[in-house]
Amino acid sequence: MSAVQSFKEWMLQVQQRTEVALDAFLPSSAIAPERLHEAMRYAVLGGGKRVRPLLAHAAGELAGAPAERLDRVSCAVELIHAYSLVHDDMPCMDNDVLRRGKPTVHVEYDEATALLVGDALQTLAFQSLTDAPTADTPQTQLKMLGLLATASGSRGMAGGQAIDLAAVGKQLSREELEFMHIHKTGALIRAAVLLGAHAGRGLDDAAMERLDHYAKVVGLLFQVVDDILDAEADTATLGKTAGKDADNDKPTYVSLLGLSDAKRLAEDMLADARATLSPFGTTAARLESLADYIVHRAF
Amino acid sequence: MSAVQSFKEWMLQVQQRTEVALDAFLPSSAIAPERLHEAMRYAVLGGGKRVRPLLAHAAGELAGAPAERLDRVSCAVELIHAYSLVHDDMPCMDNDVLRRGKPTVHVEYDEATALLVGDALQTLAFQSLTDAPTADTPQTQLKMLGLLATASGSRGMAGGQAIDLAAVGKQLSREELEFMHIHKTGALIRAAVLLGAHAGRGLDDAAMERLDHYAKVVGLLFQVVDDILDAEADTATLGKTAGKDADNDKPTYVSLLGLSDAKRLAEDMLADARATLSPFGTTAARLESLADYIVHRAF
Repeated sequence: MSAVQSFKEWMLQVQQRTEVALDAFLPSSAIAPERLHEAMRYAVLGGGKRVRPLLAHAAGELAGAPAERLDRVSCAVELIHAYSLVHDDMPCMDNDVLRRGKPTVHVEYDEATALLVGDALQTLAFQSLTDAPTADTPQTQLKMLGLLATASGSRGMAGGQAIDLAAVGKQLSREELEFMHIHKTGALIRAAVLLGAHAGRGLDDAAMERLDHYAKVVGLLFQVVDDILDAEADTATLGKTAGKDADNDKPTYVSLLGLSDAKRLAEDMLADARATLSPFGTTAARLESLADYIVHRAF
Repeated sequence: MSAVQSFKEWMLQVQQRTEVALDAFLPSSAIAPERLHEAMRYAVLGGGKRVRPLLAHAAGELAGAPAERLDRVSCAVELIHAYSLVHDDMPCMDNDVLRRGKPTVHVEYDEATALLVGDALQTLAFQSLTDAPTADTPQTQLKMLGLLATASGSRGMAGGQAIDLAAVGKQLSREELEFMHIHKTGALIRAAVLLGAHAGRGLDDAAMERLDHYAKVVGLLFQVVDDILDAEADTATLGKTAGKDADNDKPTYVSLLGLSDAKRLAEDMLADARATLSPFGTTAARLESLADYIVHRAF
């Protein structure tokens, strides 16, 4: 994709090709079990900002990765994200009825189907990194599968959900809140960046470390901004139930720091992300714009 | 393991080493999030006949696979199996309170934890095939990950669960019942055999096809016998709630064929499995004994 292409055009293009890739990779609803496949497609297609695919493509472009490999990586991270939303919305978790402006899967279908949709989307995420080349060597591809698993499992995203559950109604310190979000949201966002980079030529250790620091900062930044959005926005703008974290008595950056300090924290983290990228020069322009986009979608 | 070792001794040895491998591979309950890790261990350890690991080891021995690789394969298939049980037992699915003689995970912990336990166990299954060598080449290892994903997802086990849900209260033909079980139980049992074989030296195509036929027959046979067991046994013997399929108005081989014809079907399938193995000679003795064991645990 051309360097002169505007960030907005690039973003739209990645979002569109991710939609095409997901549509092609998800089983058709004409294949048995039809209702399950239909519900899987309902959960994944036609919505979402595709932040993780955008990060994967931006990191992949920095590392010279072919776009077809980045489509696979995008499917992997977006399917994990989608599965987590379906399960997170279920009555035994957040009990939410609205997601991306549509009824949640257990509302549109039923609870048992939502459970199976999430299960099958997780499986499909791993499948997307197995049945086509996503790296220069199969060794690197195996490493990518390991990264995805670590980011998604009990020491990553699913673990973060468990910490989140245990935190309801509790007063957390900033360190504890950070620990929760590093797992719940940060791990998969970090994986999106690293998987994008691994899909290309090997970057040297120093470059990978910088990229990893950027990914960690952006992963946490995303949650800080989410808390700000949740506190400020109304349900129509957000496309999901607003203010639900406060309603559920969940600790957030806003409840801990207050709104203006949470915004200041976001700006500080953005500056950190930018500084980390500066040695890459213009090749990291998309990553920089993405960090900026993540913050300024909010305010 | 020595050929003169009795089948019973061999079985016990594989079960024990699988327990050790699972115990080592599951995160310690001293690692955060502690409660999630404790519940994951509760769901997996200290119970189960470990049929899938037994099949993986038996096929792996036929293919000359190192036992350490077969431990990894065993963890992968057993973790997928365990995750499916935890989710299947939840109130929105079978709503079962007893499993392997203990309260089910959502009863012992809570529903949200059971949901996350299942999710994290599935992730861990894929992880077990990524972070140590399980085959002669990384290409074969990637193929194994793909096999596990296909067997577990919407066109395998999770799809079979969806078909099962849709079948409640319906009269199925034998073909429809078979289609359901090929997905729900058969796919993962088949994967256990094939993964065990892939962990060893490459078998030729004819040998792999025979092994695959054996695996398919045994996968279905397992369900036929399960239906017989469910119809005959009482809850104490079974370690799970007996008669629940009939209670839930689910179609079974026994409800479709009657008890004595279901038993005859099981004996015919056992004969088919034996005939398929015969060209392998004594190297397939464990696989043959396992088919026999699967049938005669019942009657």
